[in-house]
Amino acid sequence: MALSRLVVDIHTHVYLPRYASVLRSRTAAPRILSRTTPAGLAEDRLVILDDEPSGGRPVGPQYWDRDEKLKFMDNHGIDISIVSTANPWLDFLPFPAAQTLARDLNADLESYCSTAPPADPSAPALKRLYGFGLLPLVPGTPPAALPPAVAHLAASHPHIRGVILGTRAAGKGLDDPALEPLWAALADSGLVVFLHPHYGLGPQAWGDADNGHVLPLALGFPFETTTAITRLILAGVLDRHPRLRILLAHAGGALPQLSSRLASCIAHDPAVAARLRHDARWYLGRLYFDAVAYGSAELAFVADAVGRAARFASATGAPDKADTAPEGEGAGAGERNAGSRRMLFGTDHPFFPPLDESERWRSVVENLEAIDGVAGWSAADRAGVKGANALELFGLAA
Amino acid sequence: MALSRLVVDIHTHVYLPRYASVLRSRTAAPRILSRTTPAGLAEDRLVILDDEPSGGRPVGPQYWDRDEKLKFMDNHGIDISIVSTANPWLDFLPFPAAQTLARDLNADLESYCSTAPPADPSAPALKRLYGFGLLPLVPGTPPAALPPAVAHLAASHPHIRGVILGTRAAGKGLDDPALEPLWAALADSGLVVFLHPHYGLGPQAWGDADNGHVLPLALGFPFETTTAITRLILAGVLDRHPRLRILLAHAGGALPQLSSRLASCIAHDPAVAARLRHDARWYLGRLYFDAVAYGSAELAFVADAVGRAARFASATGAPDKADTAPEGEGAGAGERNAGSRRMLFGTDHPFFPPLDESERWRSVVENLEAIDGVAGWSAADRAGVKGANALELFGLAA
Repeated sequence: MALSRLVVDIHTHVYLPRYASVLRSRTAAPRILSRTTPAGLAEDRLVILDDEPSGGRPVGPQYWDRDEKLKFMDNHGIDISIVSTANPWLDFLPFPAAQTLARDLNADLESYCSTAPPADPSAPALKRLYGFGLLPLVPGTPPAALPPAVAHLAASHPHIRGVILGTRAAGKGLDDPALEPLWAALADSGLVVFLHPHYGLGPQAWGDADNGHVLPLALGFPFETTTAITRLILAGVLDRHPRLRILLAHAGGALPQLSSRLASCIAHDPAVAARLRHDARWYLGRLYFDAVAYGSAELAFVADAVGRAARFASATGAPDKADTAPEGEGAGAGERNAGSRRMLFGTDHPFFPPLDESERWRSVVENLEAIDGVAGWSAADRAGVKGANALELFGLAA
Repeated sequence: MALSRLVVDIHTHVYLPRYASVLRSRTAAPRILSRTTPAGLAEDRLVILDDEPSGGRPVGPQYWDRDEKLKFMDNHGIDISIVSTANPWLDFLPFPAAQTLARDLNADLESYCSTAPPADPSAPALKRLYGFGLLPLVPGTPPAALPPAVAHLAASHPHIRGVILGTRAAGKGLDDPALEPLWAALADSGLVVFLHPHYGLGPQAWGDADNGHVLPLALGFPFETTTAITRLILAGVLDRHPRLRILLAHAGGALPQLSSRLASCIAHDPAVAARLRHDARWYLGRLYFDAVAYGSAELAFVADAVGRAARFASATGAPDKADTAPEGEGAGAGERNAGSRRMLFGTDHPFFPPLDESERWRSVVENLEAIDGVAGWSAADRAGVKGANALELFGLAA
């Protein structure tokens, strides 16, 4: 099989055994607790938030057993997975404990990946598993500790090709000016930053009705990611660090749909507009988006929003200049194809498991079919989103 | 001019003089305060939220003077406006005061519209101004008071064709089961419900950086609308009231982009799935969306999401059935055109004024050009979004 036909899952989580042990030792969220179900069966439940709906969710070997990950990959035709520790990562730990656990978990993840079977007979050095590592970035982290952590990760973990970041950072969010050395270090390292939500909006946003996990997952997660990346853009981080590579979970949340509104609001707030080099829509062409959106129309639109970004470049930084970008019919020709190059297939495994015993998970099939159903994408575009873009982004294509 | 070529603005606000007086009399937000600028000029400022960024915004006759509204319409080729009181409506009043003020403001608005000049010589009964009225729906409103208020509005205010609703309702949101009589009354009345945000997320979501109004307006507003309409869908309100007509501000916020994710999350939460008659995506075809999104790609996508809704109808209510909806290429033919019929031009006047003295507002021009730039829309589709759909929805076409 040509490498360009490999299927790569870039949004797939693991709770490494060491991490699961930490969660089992805890008496407050996030934790894994063991209980007996009303039917008398033993059950482990993962509770990641205070006041979590439905008392958390059942967890089992899918969350920590590498053989289960590989079996899942086999069942869905996935050749390579870039696995990441799931939320809430280390957010609940004091800095010294986070620093120690990050190092240990990164070593565990390197081993998890480096001892995996090869992905393809034609390239025996290519493994089936690669990873996003963890940084010791929690409330109280001294910013000076971050560049060495990035450098250590990049230098000593050849199978770790990125880091997964939540949105709270050192407690003040990702637009905290104290994080400037982190962005510089990440841009230098070549590691891909996977920006992923955890907190959503808090239960008061969802009202009194029992809607299970639907609202926090369907809305709260994307809202959180959208807010975090928008704050990062407004802080000028993408202007100052052009080599920084950021991958957004869940197809960028609501960022694409709100990007022209964002541009309009910025244009009406001169102090903000003067600070940015480009129209807000330009920055979408600098980002990467997972293709975890469950529908073809959504993916097509993300590609359109990414593909049009170049039209909104401003040579001078004056946001008015973007006005001259053509918005008429025909302006979009080829943009959906160009946009596809920054989109990457993901599954969100082991979340969204089937409710029956299906070996093929509906959530995964939907995301694969969504890629196949995007109008206007060529076979090469689809193959890119399914895997070739990831091989390129994570340096696996050579 | 044929009526089908009229331009109708369905998202345009007024602070009627009586309402502005109430705001001037207040010492806490929402209020209008008079101050002297650092340059020594007298200035009125509107402050609608506690802790509002930038100390609110300057306000003037654009907010209350009908001649200014008509002049704005003339400058932008707008034939008819369906005006609405802007947020926060009556939310800050106790019920008895809200009830009295709603009646008075509705009478004011009826007069504001009924004495307006005609829109078109070929149909002299057609006025240039129609309105969305107010309901006395505030924390503490007895639900039994709402159906009579709806009936009175519909029976005695021929130029009021809808109501504008915020998201807090009687304090528990729009999915409060106590509101069931309201939805029944609105469905019976034929009034269009304009769902509009006010609260956003609260300042803690936006971090420490000074980004002016950008984040609450660009993100907070759409998030709030998205949450409110999703909660309404999950509560089964659209299932129980098929004649209810709801128009979403700001092109539905993030609902279109998150609709397939919402469907997936519902499918994985059986208690929620069992309660709904259809896949989440079906409900988008029941809603109306203003075209206030500032970009062609955004409008195209909203139309796609609305147009595909019919594919997700479930005859049985079993959400799995939606799986059989075709998602392959070609499935979308004609859907973008069909979707346009539920989209309606708006300006958000008098908000987003130009920063210079331009008579043509950039925010308005962008929204008109966005409609013209949607790939695949026919001339009739564009004319529909610009006005003909509104004439139909608000019963002005006859």
